[in-house]
Amino acid sequence: MNFTIRHARKKDMQAVHKLICELAAFENEPDAVTITKETLIDLGTGENPLFTCFVAEVHSKIVGTAIVYFRFSTWKGKSLHLEDLIVSQEFRGFGIGKALYNKVMHHAFKENVNRVEWVVLDWNKNAINFYKKSGVTFLKDWHLVQMNKQQLVTYLETIN
Amino acid sequence: MNFTIRHARKKDMQAVHKLICELAAFENEPDAVTITKETLIDLGTGENPLFTCFVAEVHSKIVGTAIVYFRFSTWKGKSLHLEDLIVSQEFRGFGIGKALYNKVMHHAFKENVNRVEWVVLDWNKNAINFYKKSGVTFLKDWHLVQMNKQQLVTYLETIN
Repeated sequence: MNFTIRHARKKDMQAVHKLICELAAFENEPDAVTITKETLIDLGTGENPLFTCFVAEVHSKIVGTAIVYFRFSTWKGKSLHLEDLIVSQEFRGFGIGKALYNKVMHHAFKENVNRVEWVVLDWNKNAINFYKKSGVTFLKDWHLVQMNKQQLVTYLETIN
Repeated sequence: MNFTIRHARKKDMQAVHKLICELAAFENEPDAVTITKETLIDLGTGENPLFTCFVAEVHSKIVGTAIVYFRFSTWKGKSLHLEDLIVSQEFRGFGIGKALYNKVMHHAFKENVNRVEWVVLDWNKNAINFYKKSGVTFLKDWHLVQMNKQQLVTYLETIN
C-alpha cells in the first residue's frame, strides 16, 4: 500500500479527531474524549503550538496520526512525549504504524532530545511487543497520578 | 516555621539543582541527574521556558521546590504536569510540601487546565497517602515507556 507521512495541516484536524476517538474506543474509554476539532486547531497551530501532529495519508485520506510534544525532565532535560500513535483499523498491517513511529524517532533525534517517552495500557500486548522490539525500557514501578478538573475544584474548596 | 512560596529566579537554580539531586538520591537513582544548573537556567527562563519553578524559602534559604509544565492530552486538552515536588530532608514536617502542592493546584486552576498529572514510585507510601487525601486518581494499568538517547541512536541505525 502506498502512503505518505507528513506534518498535519489545519484541514486534517477533523480526520485526526476521528482517529483520536477511534483509539479511545479501542482503549475502552469511548466517552473520554472531550476535546473538539476546534480545540485541536487552537492548541496545535499558531505561534506556540502545544503539540506537533504527523499524519499518514493514503489516496488523500488521513488513515493514521502520531501526536508529540516536548516535555522537561529534571534528570535529563528536554524530552519528547509521544501522546498518540494511531492507525485506523482497516489500514493496519501495512507498515503505516511503524512509519509513523520512525518519523517520531527521527523528529526526536533532529530536535536533540535526551529521551522519548509515552505510556501503554498493560493489556495492549501488540503495542508492547512492537515497542519492545525497538529497544525501549518499560518502567513498571511508577504509577500515574491524575487530578481532573472536578477533583481540582473540590480540593481547592477544601483548602480555602 | 515561617516560609514563603514564590516563583524561582535565575539565581535560585543552583539551590533547585541541589534539591533535584537530593530527590534522585531519595529515589535510589543518585546518578540519574545529568542536567546541569546552566541547563536549568537555559530551559526554565527566556521567552518560551519549558517549565515553571516555584520555590519555598526559609530565611533566604531555598528549602523546597515544585516544578511544573504544560502538557497536551488528546482526550482532555491542556493539562499541567507536576515534574517534581521536593522539600529538603531537614525541613520536612512543617507544611512546606503541602504549601508547594497547593501553589501548584492554584496555578493549575488559574491556567484553566483540565487535568494535573504526575507519577509516583509505588514504594513511596508517604507521598501516595498524601496524594490520596487530596482526592486524586491513581492509574495502575498504564506502563511508562522510555527510549533514551542511546536507545534512540541504536534504533535509528537499525532502520536506516
